[in-house]
Amino acid sequence: MTDRSVRIAAAQMGPIARDEPRADVVDRMIALLHRARAGGAQLVVFPELALTTFFPRWFFADWAEVDVFFETEMPSAATKPLFDEALRLGIGFSFGYAEADDSSGTRHRYNTSILVDGRGAIVGKYHKVHLPGHEEHEPWRPFQHLERRYFEPGSSFDVWRAFGGIVGMAICNDRRWPETYRVLALQGCELALIGYNTPIHYAPDPTQDALAGFHNHLVLQSGAYQNGMWVVGVAKCGVEEGVDALAQSVIVAPSGQIVAQCTTAGDEVVVAECDLDRCAQYKHTLFDFDRYRRPEVYGLITERRGAIPPPP
Amino acid sequence: MTDRSVRIAAAQMGPIARDEPRADVVDRMIALLHRARAGGAQLVVFPELALTTFFPRWFFADWAEVDVFFETEMPSAATKPLFDEALRLGIGFSFGYAEADDSSGTRHRYNTSILVDGRGAIVGKYHKVHLPGHEEHEPWRPFQHLERRYFEPGSSFDVWRAFGGIVGMAICNDRRWPETYRVLALQGCELALIGYNTPIHYAPDPTQDALAGFHNHLVLQSGAYQNGMWVVGVAKCGVEEGVDALAQSVIVAPSGQIVAQCTTAGDEVVVAECDLDRCAQYKHTLFDFDRYRRPEVYGLITERRGAIPPPP
Repeated sequence: MTDRSVRIAAAQMGPIARDEPRADVVDRMIALLHRARAGGAQLVVFPELALTTFFPRWFFADWAEVDVFFETEMPSAATKPLFDEALRLGIGFSFGYAEADDSSGTRHRYNTSILVDGRGAIVGKYHKVHLPGHEEHEPWRPFQHLERRYFEPGSSFDVWRAFGGIVGMAICNDRRWPETYRVLALQGCELALIGYNTPIHYAPDPTQDALAGFHNHLVLQSGAYQNGMWVVGVAKCGVEEGVDALAQSVIVAPSGQIVAQCTTAGDEVVVAECDLDRCAQYKHTLFDFDRYRRPEVYGLITERRGAIPPPP
Repeated sequence: MTDRSVRIAAAQMGPIARDEPRADVVDRMIALLHRARAGGAQLVVFPELALTTFFPRWFFADWAEVDVFFETEMPSAATKPLFDEALRLGIGFSFGYAEADDSSGTRHRYNTSILVDGRGAIVGKYHKVHLPGHEEHEPWRPFQHLERRYFEPGSSFDVWRAFGGIVGMAICNDRRWPETYRVLALQGCELALIGYNTPIHYAPDPTQDALAGFHNHLVLQSGAYQNGMWVVGVAKCGVEEGVDALAQSVIVAPSGQIVAQCTTAGDEVVVAECDLDRCAQYKHTLFDFDRYRRPEVYGLITERRGAIPPPP
């Protein structure tokens, strides 16, 4: 343990009912904050879209019905008590929410997460880059996954100096794409905070359902190892409005090892001591990027979106 | 099982002594070929540097001592019996070797693997892109890892149409870099063949030693899953000239699941039925690159070799 050791809590959240008021959700988050505090946490990571039910599961023809799930300011009146209590305790936090940004005169909607330091300042904001699912209503599905309808994608992965290190954020589906971790790591990222809402049923290929937990850990662990960074993956989980979502929140070391894991499918906190100096064990040896990477061979990764097979 | 199902053998090899003649090694490879044939294999994958001991563990001041480990033609006199027997059986194969290429008038040395089809034709050749280890003699190490001294790096990841699908190759340390799988997958790769020699002791950070097997599978499995491809990882293993090398060769499905694994640290064959059509379950759904990738956000991956942290 060094001076750059941070006690981090993964604050997993169980289902949020569609009619559950924001104030009640924030009360749950404050309760989790207190549990995290009891474990000595300096930073508490909440899930993606932590303030509401996972509304992209429904098709709404009317945008007014969608917009009730969005926040137009942050902190909002409803979330102010969380900011206040965290500030009082001197704890930093991160959570995801649906953001409506009217600052340009046109409404832009994002799947957003923010990073708040121990003095209550929002030091980082991230807009989800990899939006999964579909754009149009697909009635054949048992439930929808309309993130590509309701959100615009973000345009960058950024890092911030916070908690004594270099911190990045990603959201849910981003974690399955190795580019996510790599773009963060190329900016020196030592700690990636990743909230998720992952329905266990994947309608386009249900053979993947039984592998949901395995795939979740596989990508979080490989992302951590291959980039020498801590990764905190935090679920909103359990049966929410009839849809079963993956739990199994984890804190992963730069070695790829899981050092803490939630074992329920509800509101739960696990805390781990995350020594950011341990990143160097990988970043300065096997994964010394400057010494070993070969970007001149990686051209297709940025030149090409889809695969182009060789001629038959 | 479809028409595009291929029975593939991972032909793991135990240690090769420094004074073991090529002909004896090739006899071992032919014995493995026969075992693979008994399992119905159509393609047999041998390890990296399959014909010799892993000579980069030694420092040689005299290049003449190095060059005895290199092949100047392929098939060579010593490997011809393997080519002949595979052709007789109608089996394809792949193996790694140290290649000395004098065709330009200057000697170029590569860590090479080749792909040979069921009619005995060399249809693909690959030069290792990610050379690990060091360039200079480092006497503090219990053994050297002088790949960066003895080999020039390759300059591309390529794919070939073979065995009814699209096949790529990578070698050892390449498998730890997500860019390897991604560049192959962006060319439609459905099957990646990856031989390795992995000393269990990693001198720059021995805390990694106990994790060698975990890391090996983590990168092979995540590479398979995140790219919807079959991955065959084949070890040269066991205690070779005093150095203990990782075994645990595996065949990994596009789901990331290990479908076959060697359980000894010696010459051993495992065979799996690899249906290349199963790649589509991932390539056309969750990992539909054309639909979901965001290359416009990935610029740093090709613009930057090493990490550049934000200003303090």
